[in-house]
Amino acid sequence: MKDLLGREEALNADEARKRLLDQAVNMPAAETLSIDSAYGMVLARDVIAPGDLPGFTRSVMDGFAVNAADTFGASDTMPVYLDVRGQVVMGQRPSVSIMRGEALSIPTGGMLPNGADAVVMLEHTNMADENMVEVMKALAPWENVIRTDEDLKKGERVIAAGKRLRPQDIGALAGMGIVEVDVFRKPAVAIIGTGDEVVPPERVPAPGEVRDINSYNLAGLIMGCGARPVKLGIVRDDLDTLKKVLEEAVRTSDMVLITGGSSVGARDFTAQAINEQGRPGVLFHGVAMKPGKPLIGGIVNGVPVFGLPGHPAAITVSFETIVEPLLLRMTGETIPVHLPARRLVRAIFSRNLSSSLGREEHIRVSLEKRQGALWAAPVLGKSGLVRTLVQADGIVIVPMNKSGLYEGEEVEVRLFK
Amino acid sequence: MKDLLGREEALNADEARKRLLDQAVNMPAAETLSIDSAYGMVLARDVIAPGDLPGFTRSVMDGFAVNAADTFGASDTMPVYLDVRGQVVMGQRPSVSIMRGEALSIPTGGMLPNGADAVVMLEHTNMADENMVEVMKALAPWENVIRTDEDLKKGERVIAAGKRLRPQDIGALAGMGIVEVDVFRKPAVAIIGTGDEVVPPERVPAPGEVRDINSYNLAGLIMGCGARPVKLGIVRDDLDTLKKVLEEAVRTSDMVLITGGSSVGARDFTAQAINEQGRPGVLFHGVAMKPGKPLIGGIVNGVPVFGLPGHPAAITVSFETIVEPLLLRMTGETIPVHLPARRLVRAIFSRNLSSSLGREEHIRVSLEKRQGALWAAPVLGKSGLVRTLVQADGIVIVPMNKSGLYEGEEVEVRLFK
Repeated sequence: MKDLLGREEALNADEARKRLLDQAVNMPAAETLSIDSAYGMVLARDVIAPGDLPGFTRSVMDGFAVNAADTFGASDTMPVYLDVRGQVVMGQRPSVSIMRGEALSIPTGGMLPNGADAVVMLEHTNMADENMVEVMKALAPWENVIRTDEDLKKGERVIAAGKRLRPQDIGALAGMGIVEVDVFRKPAVAIIGTGDEVVPPERVPAPGEVRDINSYNLAGLIMGCGARPVKLGIVRDDLDTLKKVLEEAVRTSDMVLITGGSSVGARDFTAQAINEQGRPGVLFHGVAMKPGKPLIGGIVNGVPVFGLPGHPAAITVSFETIVEPLLLRMTGETIPVHLPARRLVRAIFSRNLSSSLGREEHIRVSLEKRQGALWAAPVLGKSGLVRTLVQADGIVIVPMNKSGLYEGEEVEVRLFK
Repeated sequence: MKDLLGREEALNADEARKRLLDQAVNMPAAETLSIDSAYGMVLARDVIAPGDLPGFTRSVMDGFAVNAADTFGASDTMPVYLDVRGQVVMGQRPSVSIMRGEALSIPTGGMLPNGADAVVMLEHTNMADENMVEVMKALAPWENVIRTDEDLKKGERVIAAGKRLRPQDIGALAGMGIVEVDVFRKPAVAIIGTGDEVVPPERVPAPGEVRDINSYNLAGLIMGCGARPVKLGIVRDDLDTLKKVLEEAVRTSDMVLITGGSSVGARDFTAQAINEQGRPGVLFHGVAMKPGKPLIGGIVNGVPVFGLPGHPAAITVSFETIVEPLLLRMTGETIPVHLPARRLVRAIFSRNLSSSLGREEHIRVSLEKRQGALWAAPVLGKSGLVRTLVQADGIVIVPMNKSGLYEGEEVEVRLFK
């Protein structure tokens, strides 16, 4: 849609996200990894238990393996007496079975002998003599043991595809003897820097030149989503060059981010290059938020392509607001219900600040503790300054229909990762 | 302190943490890394700006570089007219200066010519003829520009030692031309598995044997703290073997975790091995929490050594509750004020659950959304089951002086990482 001056009208952020998420995108393929390398990766196929865990009935206490029925009615004042037939050795099948009236001493983790169905804790026993134990507590069958399939039962689904593997999940895989898993490859996200004034950080800039900040910021933001940045260098502000590099990037990556290009001319190049690359092309050109308004979003043959504004704060805000939700989906992770809450903290806003109606304003804030409460102070400054991002701990969003924030107002801060 | 039965009395968790944090421990050394490898690392030395950023006065808009004084009083109905002397080319020093009454066209990011002190946005101008621009807005000096040292001033401290480097921090380093930084090495945390019944995951366990779950769980928990796990394998339940491996581990690592050893005998070995290794030795033996009670904590010649209980849930709880605060300190990070809030979400507890007075109870919970609210349901089961950890999203702590939780009660859930 165009405004009265013939410019594309900025979409609101929700609508921009929706346009992207409504499109089909290519998902990364799966790969097989050793469990040692699979921490934090997203499972591509359900894991089914190949056998029972622990696989035998195991004591969870130090004590005596007994037949629970022998202990019925036992108490401090009315102990029962059992013949001790020997001991269970850790890691070995017990050499003897027990019969009614008998017991074997057993360590935590030891295998229950045949004939036993419970373990009485050491604390509730007393050696009456060398071969006889006094039991002062009644036990229910299967008390203080883990049964052969009580942890995991052969054939059951243990971990569902789409889960990001946490330490305990890898532990469970190890416990089942699964030493390799199929996980989704990390999405490869190409970063194309543009701007005739941009030089790599190791070069001394000539007057009018600046070093590349945005590729470095973006690479970290990409890694923070569980994806893999691929830097394709800095290309000249020139349509043909951009088209060539973009073609290569779309062919070899799962997503493409073009940075820089804040001037009107560069923005037009970017939109044109995206549209000429494939269908459906540009989905929106401009988002009603500050900073980050000049953001371009599109999809080319299933590969999302973004033209990000060139200012450092605009990079961070447009990435987190619009790019990240799509990139997270492309990791294959089934987003847990608590994820949205995960990076939010509540704080008290430290001063009055006005904001424009009709666009979301993303205020960088730093947090500090005063008398036990968390306060959020806006870090003011132009979005072209990297300093404001370095000093900030997170972002407070002022919605489109709100004209500002008041001192003392409670706000929700979305923390930087 | 010993109880009436001559056993060491369990410390409460706060006291156990305090005993550890009161001791001096060896901190990892610093190393120099390329900024490409420094994401998420902790800065070991303050970063001082080696020069001004951007280093020249830069436009943040597409428009015309002007002398602000020329625009005073200008408005839609009362424009001022300026001679356009040419254009600023991106990435180059302007070839001409301007005088009063003159202007140069300038792109976003372009270098301001001598004589100019502001930029009027394209939207507020109109070309009167080929060489004359109509300016319809009054500008303050330095409006729409970033001055030579406005982002970072030579000699100022940009990032303080102790900060964990985020994407934008690496961006700022790149912007200053700093391509290498001194960061703290990740603490190396040795994992010693014990237990005659424990076999590596690739082995088929004989009856009475189980595969190693704990080393795999712990390795992930360690990585989650920004530290580096070093697995030293599984040693036999034997004091001399344990002492030998522990000696090696204390010499080569920053922290040592001994896992397994849930039986009384194994726990005694572990405590003895720690005490014989150096001073001050064991600081506590048992913590009043469930699961995790048998936890042993000590320090040997500046190296923290823990004997962790052998049950999977006890591993996770004792690590997060007691080991993690110390390990985070050893990363060198200055803990941000919002860190404690970072992994906490509020939820509604889904059922009545009783808890014992006199010890902290750590309830594993899974989260689900019902009618827009987050509910926490306890995942019940013995702490020897890895299943309960796999199904859980986090932990709710019932404090020592509370006898349980009620259905509908609001609780704080500490999410697993």
